[in-house]
Amino acid sequence: MSHGIELVHVTRGKSTESIHMGHVAVVSADGRLLRAWGDARANVFARSSLKPFQALGLVMSGAIEKYGFTEQELALACASHSGEKQHVALAWSMLQKSGAREEDLQCGAHLPYNELASRELLKSGVDVRQLHNNCSGKHAGMIAAAKARGESTDDYLDKDHPLQRFILNAVAEIGEVNPQQIEVETDGCGAPVFGVPLQTLALLFARLANPEYAPQIYRDALTKIAHAMNRHAEMVGGTNRFDTVLMNTFPERIVGKEGAEGVHGLGIMNEGIGIAVKIADGAKRAIYPTVLRALELQGIRVSDCAALTPFANAAVKNVAQRTVGEIFAVYGEVSI
Amino acid sequence: MSHGIELVHVTRGKSTESIHMGHVAVVSADGRLLRAWGDARANVFARSSLKPFQALGLVMSGAIEKYGFTEQELALACASHSGEKQHVALAWSMLQKSGAREEDLQCGAHLPYNELASRELLKSGVDVRQLHNNCSGKHAGMIAAAKARGESTDDYLDKDHPLQRFILNAVAEIGEVNPQQIEVETDGCGAPVFGVPLQTLALLFARLANPEYAPQIYRDALTKIAHAMNRHAEMVGGTNRFDTVLMNTFPERIVGKEGAEGVHGLGIMNEGIGIAVKIADGAKRAIYPTVLRALELQGIRVSDCAALTPFANAAVKNVAQRTVGEIFAVYGEVSI
Repeated sequence: MSHGIELVHVTRGKSTESIHMGHVAVVSADGRLLRAWGDARANVFARSSLKPFQALGLVMSGAIEKYGFTEQELALACASHSGEKQHVALAWSMLQKSGAREEDLQCGAHLPYNELASRELLKSGVDVRQLHNNCSGKHAGMIAAAKARGESTDDYLDKDHPLQRFILNAVAEIGEVNPQQIEVETDGCGAPVFGVPLQTLALLFARLANPEYAPQIYRDALTKIAHAMNRHAEMVGGTNRFDTVLMNTFPERIVGKEGAEGVHGLGIMNEGIGIAVKIADGAKRAIYPTVLRALELQGIRVSDCAALTPFANAAVKNVAQRTVGEIFAVYGEVSI
Repeated sequence: MSHGIELVHVTRGKSTESIHMGHVAVVSADGRLLRAWGDARANVFARSSLKPFQALGLVMSGAIEKYGFTEQELALACASHSGEKQHVALAWSMLQKSGAREEDLQCGAHLPYNELASRELLKSGVDVRQLHNNCSGKHAGMIAAAKARGESTDDYLDKDHPLQRFILNAVAEIGEVNPQQIEVETDGCGAPVFGVPLQTLALLFARLANPEYAPQIYRDALTKIAHAMNRHAEMVGGTNRFDTVLMNTFPERIVGKEGAEGVHGLGIMNEGIGIAVKIADGAKRAIYPTVLRALELQGIRVSDCAALTPFANAAVKNVAQRTVGEIFAVYGEVSI
């Protein structure tokens, strides 16, 4: 990973106070690098942007049919959800349907991303649960997939578990990389996570959006995943979360997934275009203006979408909620 | 502000996952730029690193003697405190002594920085108060200063209030800059905050640590402020906060103050050296290894100090608390 170019500025009054660097890659589903800012070959950990592809293990295991998972539950398996009531309930439902228990989850517990849900939980004095973990849907999905495949579930996070090997191989085949060149490390939730060139992440999303160029065996599963995420965007994130707002703004058109440490991947469904972003310093606040600028440069008008404005051009507010600065993208000259 | 050079890397397994850029300036109390990484002339908003100098208004107003403020209360006036019981009680005491009320504060309310204090407050159902704001000591001090100076307090945050003009002038004189070249904007707490070259911030801290080269009229006040901060470091930050640990590790030797958006200023008392840091992207996690590397390069051994190790070389942990990476400084070649 290199630091890339200036993508986002944060101002205070008349001056720039902080700067976010990073990389952007735009790739077509047939594998052409269309545009790049920074280094499209930068090796990045996909983090939660990998979830739609980890869900291939779930869909292709037959667990969806076997356990009667809904499209919403498939969306939750691809989610970094906010731990709101509906997310927790759905993760619980997934466990129940596959005959798993909450203690089978190995994601660990953290407070809900949603501030209201988090405050309510603290106020109630009830312990935070693994179901609140933003990855609980992914983990419930992995356990169900392992069960449907007739495999052990106590070691489902082991990088050598056959389900995890299946996921690695699928990512390598769809992303056209040698599986041995994918760096496998541990994600925040304990699951294996992959380090790949940024343009590979963009290619994965291009083929999620338009599976036509993906190997035949993955096409149906990719289609199911993309549609589930776009149609149930409230399950992929939550109230006021970027991916939820983005996908709700573009029905049947965009599939997108944020990851920790400043990562984002998205696919434009009808065009078969993938865009991947890595903010070098890992800042969440810089992801949104960077992604939305990339969409604008791709000819997709986001500046007219009121729901996206707070993400494209966020206000820096002081404690008293007065606006004292703003956050916005500064890149946009084609450098390739 | 420019983006500077690579200061800190964040790894995951064998690879670099994220990179923090920025600037470091090392200046002597007599005004010489001794070392720099990145651009020592980068214009930075001092944010809460300005607090020791804003406290000049309090000390030089005579309010300390008039209202019987303790050395701890002076330290709190320079603090970004954690909102723990002792901080809230002391801010309250400052208001009482000067005859002010809690509603005279104009800093706004936010949850305590201290997680335990924050959770207890949420659990209790008691509303968060302005006293919990990390800046409440500064604001209580500004109100007391305005009162002692016989000035109005309802507009104490106005950049043209005589107290704020006094502070601006003091910073300009001690930092040897033209006051008209200091950019005045609004800080997170609503107070005026100054944009100055990074090396000016370093010079201010060099002279806080060793006032010998500061204009005569400020020397006693600077000495009082530096000693109050170092001796009552638990009031300047709080439990497990960097500045508190740093100053407690170096009694009568280091005075340091963090600011928002990746800023830090510190002075080495016996040597009259000032070090200022700006992390370009504003990340808090990058401040600590950067500052501690700068101290090491200045010949001050911090690698032996167990209390500082978690700041110099922090572990990246997953939700289950397993270490999956680390955060450490990568700069250190003298570039000036």
